[in-house]
Amino acid sequence: MTTILVLGGFGFIATNILRYIDRNAFHEYEAVIFDKFPHHIKGVACQCVKRVYSGDFADELIIEKIFRENKIDIVLHCLSNTVPATSQNARFDVESNLIPTLNLLAIMERHDVKDIVYLSSGGAIYGDALQKIHNEEEAVYPKSSYGIVKLAIEKYLLSFSELYGFRTLILRLSNPFGPYHYNDRQGFINIAIRRALKGLPIEIWGSGEGKKDYIYIDDVSRIIHGFLDSGIETGVYNVASGIVLSVNQIANHVAAEFQTTEIKHIDASKIDVQSFQLDITKLQNRFKDLVFTDFQTAFIKTVEWQKNNID
Amino acid sequence: MTTILVLGGFGFIATNILRYIDRNAFHEYEAVIFDKFPHHIKGVACQCVKRVYSGDFADELIIEKIFRENKIDIVLHCLSNTVPATSQNARFDVESNLIPTLNLLAIMERHDVKDIVYLSSGGAIYGDALQKIHNEEEAVYPKSSYGIVKLAIEKYLLSFSELYGFRTLILRLSNPFGPYHYNDRQGFINIAIRRALKGLPIEIWGSGEGKKDYIYIDDVSRIIHGFLDSGIETGVYNVASGIVLSVNQIANHVAAEFQTTEIKHIDASKIDVQSFQLDITKLQNRFKDLVFTDFQTAFIKTVEWQKNNID
Repeated sequence: MTTILVLGGFGFIATNILRYIDRNAFHEYEAVIFDKFPHHIKGVACQCVKRVYSGDFADELIIEKIFRENKIDIVLHCLSNTVPATSQNARFDVESNLIPTLNLLAIMERHDVKDIVYLSSGGAIYGDALQKIHNEEEAVYPKSSYGIVKLAIEKYLLSFSELYGFRTLILRLSNPFGPYHYNDRQGFINIAIRRALKGLPIEIWGSGEGKKDYIYIDDVSRIIHGFLDSGIETGVYNVASGIVLSVNQIANHVAAEFQTTEIKHIDASKIDVQSFQLDITKLQNRFKDLVFTDFQTAFIKTVEWQKNNID
Repeated sequence: MTTILVLGGFGFIATNILRYIDRNAFHEYEAVIFDKFPHHIKGVACQCVKRVYSGDFADELIIEKIFRENKIDIVLHCLSNTVPATSQNARFDVESNLIPTLNLLAIMERHDVKDIVYLSSGGAIYGDALQKIHNEEEAVYPKSSYGIVKLAIEKYLLSFSELYGFRTLILRLSNPFGPYHYNDRQGFINIAIRRALKGLPIEIWGSGEGKKDYIYIDDVSRIIHGFLDSGIETGVYNVASGIVLSVNQIANHVAAEFQTTEIKHIDASKIDVQSFQLDITKLQNRFKDLVFTDFQTAFIKTVEWQKNNID
């Protein structure tokens, strides 16, 4: 039995991974959750979760306590206390995300836990570059503090791998969407569907013409499970589907599904990356049999889930 | 008259730049110094210095006070509270260098000061890569926290340039050497000469075979003055001489100069970058008439200065 410490364990991505484990790998993995909340915001329960700790990620005593009280094998770091739009208080961003991650690495070192999977961001790390497909080896130009902090964390992870024998797997995710998404600050597809269901206009920041990669959360869960199953190795991978859509295309898609929905354009924040595609050659070489859920199927599943889970 | 706020104003590099201004641009520039010390450690005085503030860089009230009490035109950021070998307390590194720089940028924004020159590191930023000449556009792999923090600061500077109209000039220096060097933790040429003068063995960390770029500090001062004089523009430049030497070559050179000196090899720290060369095409395109002091001349000048300034 492998014990995973899931940081941000009640969040969108972690909840999906844990439910995936419940369905597909229940006898192989058990999870210890750390989250700022003491329980899931909507009461979603995952059977593989054995224990929950809640508190502030910056409080190193509670993180230390988790490692003292549990034999952790792998850390799955899905925790961010900011989103791109809220990260421009750069000092808060550094103090609430970077420094706690450095504390975590020091605690892992003390407890001889050396395997970590870090969820980085394919959108925020690379920065703007129209009509270019980003690969993991290129120079990056993050615009937001969110992206800069994620880059710094990536570099510390690689440094800990080289200097102290950590195995640090860095996954640069594109935009995941799907069930168990409750965040109103990040995740355009889910937010647009929710607004349509409530009869609110869909809000588009900027022209909406930039195209970004979207990936169904079940595909993300399956890929992360694949990485866990085959043993953590140091490296950086883009995790994306190749389904590249503009915000306008998505808004029109949602509007067509719900027929009456209004679309409203709002001035874009300069920190938002307007366009990106990710090269997934490296991921495809790692998992030869990789298939992605087609957009229409994923979209309909997301709509169905949202219909049953609207406030 | 242009007023420069020099952070780390009593350090090796800043002292040389200020003395260069004294000699060549006294009627154009005046300096306000911030340093952890209240006066130069050896009493070296520069005429262009109008005012000195001392304190902890992390104390934002004193930085705020400087901007309230002086009309600053340009910030010259030469301050680091760590060197590569001492930066592995990563949290201290972040808290004493990155966060204070973020505070500084916020204060500059409030006082509408938008020009900043940042001294980054050509050695620590790129990381190890034998037989490769690094250029400013390539992906970087810093090994030490020192390099990671410098990279994060670079990215915040570029972000402030894009989002808030700052002009942020980033200079990735190779290894400077020459007069007014008093640091025993960084700067192999000066340290080796000092040890030879004291009859101590020269210490070499690792094999000493890796080759690095060394630049005479007067050349650095002239280049930085050139940048100041032509107006700050956002960009990243390698600042190096193309004089590439192994530590063994330097040690032998020093030993020959002082005849009797012993050379001692010590196990290398894994965080030290063993080799690097910097591509200076971009710098040469910026300053068409760039000439560098030849190594032998620079070396002899450094020896002469050290002879007159030994403890």
